[in-house]
Amino acid sequence: MRLSELGEDRFLERLRERVPASGPEVKLGIGDDAAALALPVGEMALLSTDVLVENVHFTRQTLPPRFIGRKAVAVNTSDIAAMGGRPVGLLASVCVPVVTEVEELLAVFDGILERTGELKIDFVGGNLSQTPGPMIVDVTILGVSLGGRMLTRQGARPGDSIYVSGKLGAAAEGLDLLEEGMAVSASGAVLVPKHLREGPVPLAESCLRAHRDPEPRIQLGQFLCEHELASSCIDLSDGLSRDLNRICRENGIGARITETALPIHPGVLAWERVRRRPPLEKALAGGEDYELLFTIGDDQKLRNWPDRHGVAVTRIGVVTESNQGVKLHLRDGKERALDSAGWDHFQSKRAPGEP
Amino acid sequence: MRLSELGEDRFLERLRERVPASGPEVKLGIGDDAAALALPVGEMALLSTDVLVENVHFTRQTLPPRFIGRKAVAVNTSDIAAMGGRPVGLLASVCVPVVTEVEELLAVFDGILERTGELKIDFVGGNLSQTPGPMIVDVTILGVSLGGRMLTRQGARPGDSIYVSGKLGAAAEGLDLLEEGMAVSASGAVLVPKHLREGPVPLAESCLRAHRDPEPRIQLGQFLCEHELASSCIDLSDGLSRDLNRICRENGIGARITETALPIHPGVLAWERVRRRPPLEKALAGGEDYELLFTIGDDQKLRNWPDRHGVAVTRIGVVTESNQGVKLHLRDGKERALDSAGWDHFQSKRAPGEP
Repeated sequence: MRLSELGEDRFLERLRERVPASGPEVKLGIGDDAAALALPVGEMALLSTDVLVENVHFTRQTLPPRFIGRKAVAVNTSDIAAMGGRPVGLLASVCVPVVTEVEELLAVFDGILERTGELKIDFVGGNLSQTPGPMIVDVTILGVSLGGRMLTRQGARPGDSIYVSGKLGAAAEGLDLLEEGMAVSASGAVLVPKHLREGPVPLAESCLRAHRDPEPRIQLGQFLCEHELASSCIDLSDGLSRDLNRICRENGIGARITETALPIHPGVLAWERVRRRPPLEKALAGGEDYELLFTIGDDQKLRNWPDRHGVAVTRIGVVTESNQGVKLHLRDGKERALDSAGWDHFQSKRAPGEP
Repeated sequence: MRLSELGEDRFLERLRERVPASGPEVKLGIGDDAAALALPVGEMALLSTDVLVENVHFTRQTLPPRFIGRKAVAVNTSDIAAMGGRPVGLLASVCVPVVTEVEELLAVFDGILERTGELKIDFVGGNLSQTPGPMIVDVTILGVSLGGRMLTRQGARPGDSIYVSGKLGAAAEGLDLLEEGMAVSASGAVLVPKHLREGPVPLAESCLRAHRDPEPRIQLGQFLCEHELASSCIDLSDGLSRDLNRICRENGIGARITETALPIHPGVLAWERVRRRPPLEKALAGGEDYELLFTIGDDQKLRNWPDRHGVAVTRIGVVTESNQGVKLHLRDGKERALDSAGWDHFQSKRAPGEP
């Protein structure tokens, strides 16, 4: 059945039945003019919004409806992670054509509900509208600070170490593989087209997952914030080059990062070898890593982190004076300027689905 | 210059320069991964989101860029008004084609900044994305309760009076006039095409304003909430018929409203007379009134309202038992069932720009 046949109110009734009981902080959930939440006394409210646009951030081929919902939740939660906060409540504003199948839209919301459940976030409201254009899933997330503290982009000083969590480039590699015909079945099996079967298939899976189902680094953000470790922090949504340049611009600093230190994802190393391309560009400009990029004054304090939680952190460089610029120290001993290349929504050379 | 030439980061830099200094509740404004706000202790956070989609909610002809921004702020603020809350901070997520003129997009944001300034709301963040589709302005608003109270849609009981603020149908009449060729110049003068000059032109202006620049009923919502007057409240976005049916469904009640009591806007009365159409349908199903519809147990308590503030409230009917249905008592003494007709985003017979 199409949405135009069911109508907005009846769709929202169906949706409401699927929303689980809210946590104790939610005083009024979906269904009223606004949601109402009682936040812990003394904490700041953290607010962020991010959007997924069909044929810009995803295509129906690269991202099934359930994962559109899951990813919309994760990329927003990543912003709260980068602030060192705890995600609390989420609103989803969804625009779809009137001919959209009800089941497909419900699958998007199922993905939202599933992922909010996993991340212990309450789904508290949203909005549904028709559009003559592509599907748009716009999510706003409300988080809270912990102990009145937060991580911000400001505060990095020359001499600080530069760290990144996890591995770089996997999401961009996953997108390439999806666009080249790799797919994931409903049961989660990776389907590999003939022309890709010679490649390092076992390494493809985690790249596909990185693209479809990113993992916001909530615990790491909270750890950095709680122990006042990071002097600045940002989440990597537009690629290391661009987001590092942002941190430098905001703080009036330079940076020097080292190619050999970059934690490039093994799937990127392996698949870029097949493509006879250096893996560096994906690590620098691939985008959608949703890892945390942060600076830190005293490295020693990070000692306990890698043992205690699931994600590694890697020292990739050092903060310099602003007149040093933003530099990449290459394997061959040379240096190159690291420009703001990465994912620019308006200047991108390539968007998903437009090869 | 087009956005594709300027790029996202440089556009956001230009935008930042326009954002005025934040109020004391904002601990971190635009430019970081999330905004941070310190809300008053003991109050609930109120959250709502609403979207304006080009060629669904507006066209470039009916709504100039500055008013797209102004209206997006107002319709969201109306949700906080319906909760009896105080609007505090606002996020705007804007999707536009890459070929959009920078000046045009800046005008949208200027409208947002102008209207948030007027309503004493801090603009704290947002997001900018390209889209291959129409312009989409998705706004999320954060408000707070006052004295720990809020108005909700729940609580109406049989015997309660039903009230509406302001006048009905003006926004829908304004949209008709705009689509028939009426326009507003940059200086605010109403431009009337030849075929409409015989009509009641002086009454057109407030209809055009109601469509382009609605006024959220913040003071009224706060008054109703502070004095615990209203047993339920909703803002009229989709037309009286549909929103009254929503209140009835939510509360398991019926309602009987009276045609002769409806405060139909004089512009609707006059222009529908020209069109030889009864004005009733616009008042019931026009939509976008952004007035408050509320129920109240003790009418006497409302006595002081009309004298103290700018907007009148009108008693239009009474809450009945649910088996009485939702009825309209007509001028000729008959009754008709009042169905959920109104603006349904997926079943609408007509959207703006698609006559």
